[in-house]
Amino acid sequence: MATIEDIAKKLNISKGTVSKSLNGAADVSETLRKTVLETAVELGYTRRPRKQEAKHLCLFIKNMLYAEPSDFGYDIVIGFRKAAEPAGFLVSVVPLDDAIQTGFTYDAYMLKNNFAGAFFLGLSLSDPWLGQMQTSTTPAVLLDNYVKINPTTCYVGVDNNEGMELAISHLKQLGHRHIGFLSGTLGSYVNHVRHSAFFDALRKYDLPEAHHLAGNAVYVSECLQKHLPSLLQAGVTAIICGHDLLAHAVMVHCQELGLRVPEDISIIGFDDLPICAYTTPALTSIRQDRTQIGKSAFYAVSSLLAGVPISTLLLHTQLIVRQSTAAALPAPKIVQLPPVSGR
Amino acid sequence: MATIEDIAKKLNISKGTVSKSLNGAADVSETLRKTVLETAVELGYTRRPRKQEAKHLCLFIKNMLYAEPSDFGYDIVIGFRKAAEPAGFLVSVVPLDDAIQTGFTYDAYMLKNNFAGAFFLGLSLSDPWLGQMQTSTTPAVLLDNYVKINPTTCYVGVDNNEGMELAISHLKQLGHRHIGFLSGTLGSYVNHVRHSAFFDALRKYDLPEAHHLAGNAVYVSECLQKHLPSLLQAGVTAIICGHDLLAHAVMVHCQELGLRVPEDISIIGFDDLPICAYTTPALTSIRQDRTQIGKSAFYAVSSLLAGVPISTLLLHTQLIVRQSTAAALPAPKIVQLPPVSGR
Repeated sequence: MATIEDIAKKLNISKGTVSKSLNGAADVSETLRKTVLETAVELGYTRRPRKQEAKHLCLFIKNMLYAEPSDFGYDIVIGFRKAAEPAGFLVSVVPLDDAIQTGFTYDAYMLKNNFAGAFFLGLSLSDPWLGQMQTSTTPAVLLDNYVKINPTTCYVGVDNNEGMELAISHLKQLGHRHIGFLSGTLGSYVNHVRHSAFFDALRKYDLPEAHHLAGNAVYVSECLQKHLPSLLQAGVTAIICGHDLLAHAVMVHCQELGLRVPEDISIIGFDDLPICAYTTPALTSIRQDRTQIGKSAFYAVSSLLAGVPISTLLLHTQLIVRQSTAAALPAPKIVQLPPVSGR
Repeated sequence: MATIEDIAKKLNISKGTVSKSLNGAADVSETLRKTVLETAVELGYTRRPRKQEAKHLCLFIKNMLYAEPSDFGYDIVIGFRKAAEPAGFLVSVVPLDDAIQTGFTYDAYMLKNNFAGAFFLGLSLSDPWLGQMQTSTTPAVLLDNYVKINPTTCYVGVDNNEGMELAISHLKQLGHRHIGFLSGTLGSYVNHVRHSAFFDALRKYDLPEAHHLAGNAVYVSECLQKHLPSLLQAGVTAIICGHDLLAHAVMVHCQELGLRVPEDISIIGFDDLPICAYTTPALTSIRQDRTQIGKSAFYAVSSLLAGVPISTLLLHTQLIVRQSTAAALPAPKIVQLPPVSGR
């Protein structure tokens, strides 16, 4: 393992300057500090924890709301804290802006701030730090992102295949045969996984697959405009959505088009956010238990810290059946679609 | 939650008899005891843990050697104990014979013996208790077996897709294009998974897939006789095996046929058992860290006991490159195969 002396030698500076740089002293320039941190990472330097000092974990959040109980991230953050703090860890929540990611490499940022490990919420496939995870050395647990081979990274999430099978099996029992799927952008790993899981589940339950029955788009409104009309024209009697807010928007839009939910069309969401109980009708949804996701992410990060190279940790899902799903109509109801606007 | 009184009422016997049955008193007949246990499970009765009492876990083993350091199960058992015992759990190792599985349901056996949770090594798809896991209620962690939906079961193992990709990518870099796969019976879940992972990895690395290049059989000798000759005749220059002992047998058999390993044919095993370092040549193998598998199984069972419904926990693999893999010959060496015997 590299020492402060090794770093000093490599950069041809004094041990005192290295030490000051690592410890954030004010009289070291930001440029030198960055060089020292990156050299330390390159040489494999790690801080020796002081006795009695609590280990510090960082919970990075991007592209995700978490301030209110109705937000997706809220219970995840609480679950993580609830597991980490009694085990003697400090947890800092850091909104991950682009400045952080371009200012430092992931490993250098963690070393600089004396964080032992991280839990990431909401990284997209284009985030620079996600690319670095191929070779990073600081334990990182990623919600809904999978990094192969690196033994210090772990993917945490729900068993999307199981969730999708629960939804498809429920719809099949209700007599549905033509089922559509709408979701967010494929620039996110988990949307890819749910998209494949949807088709795998159709095959498993022997239902017709037609690739035009699935659509995805970055924005909810784009999804409604671009994909919902063709699903309805193709005669789907049920739609599964990649997240609850999209499902809610699809439900309202169908109602505006004169379709009754669930009599004319069944709708299923994903996540089981608090809103599901309060939509009209109440939304059937594939539940991810977010408090338990937070807790299991702590299990994962503590395994990585103990050198147990967990790659993947998935939680069971549940289908919460409410009022937005019902028996399929013998034939899909034909709706008069408004002309597509130029937007 | 059901009480002793509920059980007594349901069976129309005294509370004292129920209590004696649950606690294994000698003056209760085995038949009555079984009825009481099964009724207790049916009603959802659970023992209240006595204060200060250590929780007891059961490690069931079937179809797997574990007594010697060279055995596959040895380090897994040690890893599990190493994690469980310091956390205050007692661990009993129970060879799972058919008498146990037919004598009691899984839940009744666990209640009878006051086990809080179990870790299963070596269950096959035809084991009766595996079927019961669809609806069992006592936490169960299964090595290499996946049970959907039941929130009290968890699958633990390695990331077989990652392992297979490491092996295929290594062979591709060495110039191999025609790669075969041999494995044990498809009556085991993990053999199914590795079989699919092999073809997924070929597709991912843009290598030709031919389904006759994969073979599986219950016995090693059967695999050598039934499948190895057709792989060699199809012109493979490398063979990946589903476990190390099979890889070793394949290596020896190829050598008997006059092929040099690795000059004429490359061989890769799976597991990285201690034997790999001592074969001639030493065997390149996909490593499953068995101590860490044992430890992570304890993480999984303690999560289930805490109500965190983990479904799947996979560990990273590594490719340990030794001397049984080398650059591919420009054309496969043709071997004179002995006539197939009638056995």
